[in-house]
Amino acid sequence: MLTLQSKKRTTMPPKARLVKETETISTRFVLPNDTNMLNNLFGGKLMAWMDEISAICAHRHSQRVVVTASVNNISFSQPIRLGDMVTLKAKISRAFTSSMEVFVDVFVDNHITGERKKCNEAIFNFVAVDQNGRPIEVPQVIPESEEEKQRYDGALRRKQLALVLAGKMKPSEAKELKAIFEEKEK
Amino acid sequence: MLTLQSKKRTTMPPKARLVKETETISTRFVLPNDTNMLNNLFGGKLMAWMDEISAICAHRHSQRVVVTASVNNISFSQPIRLGDMVTLKAKISRAFTSSMEVFVDVFVDNHITGERKKCNEAIFNFVAVDQNGRPIEVPQVIPESEEEKQRYDGALRRKQLALVLAGKMKPSEAKELKAIFEEKEK
Amino acid sequence: MLTLQSKKRTTMPPKARLVKETETISTRFVLPNDTNMLNNLFGGKLMAWMDEISAICAHRHSQRVVVTASVNNISFSQPIRLGDMVTLKAKISRAFTSSMEVFVDVFVDNHITGERKKCNEAIFNFVAVDQNGRPIEVPQVIPESEEEKQRYDGALRRKQLALVLAGKMKPSEAKELKAIFEEKEK
Amino acid sequence: MLTLQSKKRTTMPPKARLVKETETISTRFVLPNDTNMLNNLFGGKLMAWMDEISAICAHRHSQRVVVTASVNNISFSQPIRLGDMVTLKAKISRAFTSSMEVFVDVFVDNHITGERKKCNEAIFNFVAVDQNGRPIEVPQVIPESEEEKQRYDGALRRKQLALVLAGKMKPSEAKELKAIFEEKEK
Amino acid sequence: MLTLQSKKRTTMPPKARLVKETETISTRFVLPNDTNMLNNLFGGKLMAWMDEISAICAHRHSQRVVVTASVNNISFSQPIRLGDMVTLKAKISRAFTSSMEVFVDVFVDNHITGERKKCNEAIFNFVAVDQNGRPIEVPQVIPESEEEKQRYDGALRRKQLALVLAGKMKPSEAKELKAIFEEKEK
Amino acid sequence: MLTLQSKKRTTMPPKARLVKETETISTRFVLPNDTNMLNNLFGGKLMAWMDEISAICAHRHSQRVVVTASVNNISFSQPIRLGDMVTLKAKISRAFTSSMEVFVDVFVDNHITGERKKCNEAIFNFVAVDQNGRPIEVPQVIPESEEEKQRYDGALRRKQLALVLAGKMKPSEAKELKAIFEEKEK
Repeated sequence: MLTLQSKKRTTMPPKARLVKETETISTRFVLPNDTNMLNNLFGGKLMAWMDEISAICAHRHSQRVVVTASVNNISFSQPIRLGDMVTLKAKISRAFTSSMEVFVDVFVDNHITGERKKCNEAIFNFVAVDQNGRPIEVPQVIPESEEEKQRYDGALRRKQLALVLAGKMKPSEAKELKAIFEEKEK
Repeated sequence: MLTLQSKKRTTMPPKARLVKETETISTRFVLPNDTNMLNNLFGGKLMAWMDEISAICAHRHSQRVVVTASVNNISFSQPIRLGDMVTLKAKISRAFTSSMEVFVDVFVDNHITGERKKCNEAIFNFVAVDQNGRPIEVPQVIPESEEEKQRYDGALRRKQLALVLAGKMKPSEAKELKAIFEEKEK
Repeated sequence: MLTLQSKKRTTMPPKARLVKETETISTRFVLPNDTNMLNNLFGGKLMAWMDEISAICAHRHSQRVVVTASVNNISFSQPIRLGDMVTLKAKISRAFTSSMEVFVDVFVDNHITGERKKCNEAIFNFVAVDQNGRPIEVPQVIPESEEEKQRYDGALRRKQLALVLAGKMKPSEAKELKAIFEEKEK
Repeated sequence: MLTLQSKKRTTMPPKARLVKETETISTRFVLPNDTNMLNNLFGGKLMAWMDEISAICAHRHSQRVVVTASVNNISFSQPIRLGDMVTLKAKISRAFTSSMEVFVDVFVDNHITGERKKCNEAIFNFVAVDQNGRPIEVPQVIPESEEEKQRYDGALRRKQLALVLAGKMKPSEAKELKAIFEEKEK
Repeated sequence: MLTLQSKKRTTMPPKARLVKETETISTRFVLPNDTNMLNNLFGGKLMAWMDEISAICAHRHSQRVVVTASVNNISFSQPIRLGDMVTLKAKISRAFTSSMEVFVDVFVDNHITGERKKCNEAIFNFVAVDQNGRPIEVPQVIPESEEEKQRYDGALRRKQLALVLAGKMKPSEAKELKAIFEEKEK
Repeated sequence: MLTLQSKKRTTMPPKARLVKETETISTRFVLPNDTNMLNNLFGGKLMAWMDEISAICAHRHSQRVVVTASVNNISFSQPIRLGDMVTLKAKISRAFTSSMEVFVDVFVDNHITGERKKCNEAIFNFVAVDQNGRPIEVPQVIPESEEEKQRYDGALRRKQLALVLAGKMKPSEAKELKAIFEEKEK
């Protein structure tokens, strides 16, 4: 999202990396100013933290300035409390030509057992741009684990859904997306 | 999102209000700390502002503490610049039993003509809770304008989509949502 | 207060606008970090919010960078509480050659009735400047309502008072101001 | 403004202190987020800093929680720049029964000569309150220098002016204030 | 440093963990407000980030509220720039009875090669406290790598040095510390 | 730490000043966002405040941009509470060729007696740099009081210790430092 431009850049196609190599982590305390009157973390604050960590993830992967293009549905299933330690883990789930989909998994430390519990996830999309703000090619990613593969496949359907809802793609062209509705109804 | 609880509350069903009566506005400057190296507003910062204004909107409408339940797809179509004046307008698009869908429209002032230009919109969902954090009934809203009616109708489809994607509703039951795919393909 | 300069600017005298067209609104939550040990909003925080909204108001009206010139007497009659929703409304009360007087009215939402109650007002003075920081002409405003007219007339007396107290005007020349003392004593 | 209440408090009348003993100082850097597009310190930010230092001054003097009651006319004669070092000095100019008038003098360090230059002053009024938020008696102050004496005398006229403008005192009763207009016209 | 107290806690001696299991990571962007006029990260800001991440590390390890006891010599060998991505890694280097020494290694991402370069390290000491603020026993750590062993051994000498400088230990009793001066002179 | 460069600068050797002339003061409230779950000031926050005030002190003394070079051992002997008023006093304890050692003494106001109590001290080292970031000569300081003289002498030993620990000086060369161990053991 913010960086000094690399001065030299070869025109060679960027090399693909494993999804797990793109992991970027941040851990923070929930402070009084981050919370509402119920002493729960503000949704907006968590979103800002998610955006920062996923932008750093996309930036590192692409070695380019990146701009937030869109944010997919985020659910806040359970409240995060004042004094909790929140760990955000971002990974590139799939790279397209010049855009990257980033998954952010949010964990909260259990104060008694010391184990972390996942409490949230969100999907951000970033576009890498050159010095003039024009989209530029980014390296691809290679999924390995089962979860990484599912997210990689899902990234395409989510892109289609975004295009359909924006009126930029006909529903009939969004094959992978349509398949969800057709399959499940049988 | 945060409030002192009203001490007395009648058990009468809350009275419906017009959508336009729920409008809540906030205008802000984009300061250096809100921006990235391209001098554009951070996506995360804008999301935090959207969450605050929509939470105030939902709180005023329900006269209750509200918690962010989810955020729908947000697109950042064009950058907002350092020094811009950003106006956020939030309105309840539809109220369900204890939840409310809030639309936030984001405008940026043109420095030359003085007119505002819409550059963004987002949809937030809030749940109103009582003193013990349990969901509680909220007043309904009545749409009037064409846009208000479209958003009111769309709110149902978005709720279905969220339930389908979360695996809490079968695609076949999401009738209004399915209709989009069926109609458009004819 | 902060803006990208308009590149082209005709030399035509700027067109007057109605006072109500200059209204600028902002609504905010009072968060823990905004409050003192009595859980009341800090006076200094409220002043900073007032300055921001009135600067945006003056900036929009003049289409120019504006700088805070002075602040008139502000009274904090009643405390604003943690969790309250504060709405600030700024309007140009009168424009002079290159300066503008802005009234900020502060309202706090009543959590039980849902109605807003006015709890504060302040008067800010801004000067519009060109690219070189020199004062530049601003559009005039036209008051309509009774309150707008009173504030428009009062603006002149406040200007005189400021000049007298600063030793830049002799009390005898401040006719409108002197009139207050003479009239009321009869 | 914020403090843990002293548990024991004798009922003896509080002892007067010299004005110079009440001096409270704070020095700060002007950071990017404190400035507008002209790289000048925001008026609102400076006001917030003034409020904090004067509240500390009043709190120390009274050994009580203090609340901002009002702010007198503040002029921003010359801009303070990004990177400047701002020194705020607050002193009690006069104490009334339960209220205190505080003068804040603002100095900016000259980067070349290393000398400080005064660039601003403001007057804040605070009320000291007890555990229940009720006004409580404060110690008096004794002015020594010529400037301290002038400010001590002026405090009474400012109090009268505030009462007159608020409609709580007839202009004819504000003797010290009226004297300004009468004398100067001769 | 901040946490909700675990309600139940067995009195069993806490179990030792490997040093590498205590690693806690945070990655952040350097924003405009974090920098000085040379566009370098403020030393104080970096220290605040170091304190937060090391406090989280100590808190997780001890499952207790922890308080910063002291900070060892920190060197700022090379500037960190606006727009850089800073990664802080904290690990418990050694646990004493109720205190923990935490090493924080600071890395900055190279914008051209994408590799991280270490640019800083610091040592923080925390004490774990119970509900009444009294020191309480913490789990020990087991070093494995060569670096972990060196830091583990050094922790004792650093503790002695702190005690000697504070006048709480005679230099002659600080055997491990003295050995540095004796050995090297031969 | 941050400043607009002085445009003209004579090459004359800078003039020495008394230590007491370098004193720089800042007083602040401890606000909710500055504190942990025990309502105590974060160590990291205090360090950031210390860095700011000592940087201003070094900057004023040298009339140059200064960068934090290192921080000596800081002990947090007693907690500072929410609502406390913290006063930081920074003084140059000794100037070397282009570096300055700054002592920061931290005082907290007693809410009952009104007296200040010292609760902390820290030592920061800054380097003054010219427009190109290269070290530049700074004025010397002259200690007067007993404490100033002790700190002045100690500065040399601390410099040696830092060099020894960094492996840049042999322990045998650090004469003043070695003397501590030799003397005390007799």
